[in-house]
Amino acid sequence: MRSLTTPPAVVTAGASMFADSLTAQGVEVSAVRWQPPAGDAGSLATVMGDPRRRAANASALEAMLGAQAHLVDVQPAAEALGLERGQLLHAGPPVSWDQASGPMRGALVGALLLEGLADSPEAAERALAHGDVTWEPCHSRGAVGPMAGVVSPSMWVFCLRDEAHHATSWCSLNEGLGKVLRYGAYGVEVIERLHWMSEVLGPLLQRAVRAAEPVDVRAIISQMVQMGDEGHNRNRAGTLMFLREVLPAMIDSGLPTSDVAEAVRFVSGNDHFFLNLVMPACKLSCAAAADIPGSTVVTAMARNGTDFGITTSGTGDTWFTAPANTPEGLFLGGYGPQDANPDIGDSAITETAGIGGLSMATAPAIVRFVGGSVPDALATTQRMYDITVGENPAFAIPILEFRGAPTGIDVTSVVRSGVLPQINTGMAGRVAGTGQVGAGLVTPPMGCFTQALDALAAAVPPA
Amino acid sequence: MRSLTTPPAVVTAGASMFADSLTAQGVEVSAVRWQPPAGDAGSLATVMGDPRRRAANASALEAMLGAQAHLVDVQPAAEALGLERGQLLHAGPPVSWDQASGPMRGALVGALLLEGLADSPEAAERALAHGDVTWEPCHSRGAVGPMAGVVSPSMWVFCLRDEAHHATSWCSLNEGLGKVLRYGAYGVEVIERLHWMSEVLGPLLQRAVRAAEPVDVRAIISQMVQMGDEGHNRNRAGTLMFLREVLPAMIDSGLPTSDVAEAVRFVSGNDHFFLNLVMPACKLSCAAAADIPGSTVVTAMARNGTDFGITTSGTGDTWFTAPANTPEGLFLGGYGPQDANPDIGDSAITETAGIGGLSMATAPAIVRFVGGSVPDALATTQRMYDITVGENPAFAIPILEFRGAPTGIDVTSVVRSGVLPQINTGMAGRVAGTGQVGAGLVTPPMGCFTQALDALAAAVPPA
Repeated sequence: MRSLTTPPAVVTAGASMFADSLTAQGVEVSAVRWQPPAGDAGSLATVMGDPRRRAANASALEAMLGAQAHLVDVQPAAEALGLERGQLLHAGPPVSWDQASGPMRGALVGALLLEGLADSPEAAERALAHGDVTWEPCHSRGAVGPMAGVVSPSMWVFCLRDEAHHATSWCSLNEGLGKVLRYGAYGVEVIERLHWMSEVLGPLLQRAVRAAEPVDVRAIISQMVQMGDEGHNRNRAGTLMFLREVLPAMIDSGLPTSDVAEAVRFVSGNDHFFLNLVMPACKLSCAAAADIPGSTVVTAMARNGTDFGITTSGTGDTWFTAPANTPEGLFLGGYGPQDANPDIGDSAITETAGIGGLSMATAPAIVRFVGGSVPDALATTQRMYDITVGENPAFAIPILEFRGAPTGIDVTSVVRSGVLPQINTGMAGRVAGTGQVGAGLVTPPMGCFTQALDALAAAVPPA
Repeated sequence: MRSLTTPPAVVTAGASMFADSLTAQGVEVSAVRWQPPAGDAGSLATVMGDPRRRAANASALEAMLGAQAHLVDVQPAAEALGLERGQLLHAGPPVSWDQASGPMRGALVGALLLEGLADSPEAAERALAHGDVTWEPCHSRGAVGPMAGVVSPSMWVFCLRDEAHHATSWCSLNEGLGKVLRYGAYGVEVIERLHWMSEVLGPLLQRAVRAAEPVDVRAIISQMVQMGDEGHNRNRAGTLMFLREVLPAMIDSGLPTSDVAEAVRFVSGNDHFFLNLVMPACKLSCAAAADIPGSTVVTAMARNGTDFGITTSGTGDTWFTAPANTPEGLFLGGYGPQDANPDIGDSAITETAGIGGLSMATAPAIVRFVGGSVPDALATTQRMYDITVGENPAFAIPILEFRGAPTGIDVTSVVRSGVLPQINTGMAGRVAGTGQVGAGLVTPPMGCFTQALDALAAAVPPA
């Protein structure tokens, strides 16, 4: 008997006991990450065996990549979305007052104060608890909202148009960081800022946008992912490029130069202003992929601060929900993990469209904001290619030699691999009225994907 | 006799014959890049043995890292630099009319047309050839100029101040790309643009800069290197951040809104506008390190289109020159390598200060503009740490896990290793009047460094 002439190569999969034992004996081991699929094996087999799936997912990807996003108008939500007095929108899947988290309650309270529907936070809470006003998801009207995502009729919204698919999406104007409504704050300064946004900023942006060529938001996103922005928690370059596009028309608007200068200071002083344009652009991309029978591509990921919900192309508007995880990351000032609310906001639409946490590799500086390390950021995006159906060449990642962003999260890949989409996110304070407490990393609960898989399986026609 | 139990590890150095032969036989070889030092062995031994060198270079690095750069004013060159009628500045070391390249001649011609010192290009050439006007390097007055770098009295310049070292530096306003004076073009549109810059843009920027707090140019550079700009051939994020800083004061300037809107369009439409602020900021950093006896750190790299020149800390203002190389890279429109002029401009001050080509790793998208590959860009910066005395933590490169830019090129390291500083640069057309033909990569001639080494050796006090 002859011994091996080269050292043996050992590859292990699954539970680590065997690999650990070999490593302890000084043997080099290549461990393959593998775990049993998370969901019902029968559902997975049914969906994987669906002969429509491959073509349906290819169509979904093609639709996502082909979506356009031009900023065509800025309007009050009452006009743009037909919101009536006493109607509100919010982030994530539907949620009742009883189930609503602190920041969601805080934002709803603030909206009632802004609209003059209550004259104190206490009165607002009573009105909300008694059902005097109604609220529904932004997504139910084709809109999106960051964090609590609360939109009331007098708030102004961006109107983005996808002419390729004859679709429109909307998003509120970004208020800045810290004590702001979307993080659940509703103090005097919050409401005053919102009044100024409705009275000065909105009308000025409307005039500028209407006077100039529609801003190609998707083209700006293409550039920003080459400038260290991943479009969810870093929007610095995007904000500056957007400002550059609308500036000349703002200056030429004929409105008082002091208002123009104040608006420019406000926009340029808020690195996240462009997030509220990235989000509806991503919504248009995801909406274009909706309602393709047999497609297992995720078309929305959204959180209301209590539950995380997803929708898929093959299952229409149905939300598959599970309790939201709480992000882990870096905290502002004296805040810590005990202050963080569970994951909240429609902003995970950025990840659904392939940027944000899925494209962390293009924004290595993000780790200073959300935690983690630069190699983690690169590894994360590499891993995301395992759970997506394709790549978006329009969002090319320079450090990955211009590989396109991983795009089109596939429910079957998530369930089979156990790899969950990576989300970069802001963290709201748990207690209503607090505001932002930090930023960090989070994943959706697997339950959303296993439920979606079961529904996709149920929708597969008998062979 | 027993054979080895593990495969042999072969390391080779120097000429590749042995390594090639082993590789051909299927043996794995680790080749160490090594070559005999380029310069005079005696000079190298003398300078390396100089007991002052280590501390002198540490002082030079400390000065470079401690330099500030605030934009404190915008003025006509006549006022700021005391340039009189008939006096011009240019890029690089001194150059005579006979020796001047096409783009240098073209820019000098344009300056005479702008100043009304000639009424035709032919008359301007005659005046220049007959010595009716004088020209000297920008560096001789503490200024810098990109490409031909020609400055005439009526052109406006940025004035940047380093309060830490009580120093000032200046640079012209960037004209944009294509047919522009600094690339040697002098057509009607070039001269008209320069008139507009002197009559509208300069005064407007002056009013805005004087009205606001001094813009911290170094802080913007810190941010831009986290946003895909290396500060020489990519200044997109820097330009937008600069615009953001001066915008409110421009809008509030009281000047006609049509002029303000036009200026904003001009600045924001030119991704290189901020280069002319990066350069004097880098000049201030390098100037702070000047005149330290025994220091082998390079304090300027500059090209006049004919010769490449360097200065070092230990040898004062003396230029060490050699014929400039011609960049290799990507060409505009129908231009090709035969159209490119040898390397030109003071913009290699960016590399002298640690950014530009030395920090290519932070700008992987630059390869689409200057050629090369993304792995090349990373490897280039890694290699530059071998020839620099330190790192600049203020210019942290995210993809290298926030390692500081390689800073302070050491003449002895360049000569010993044969590794030359990497420069990213624009390419001017060889023929006067052409303008830009491309952008690419280039290195200085080794002769500059071996001459500097000899001079440094001559200045070492006897033991």
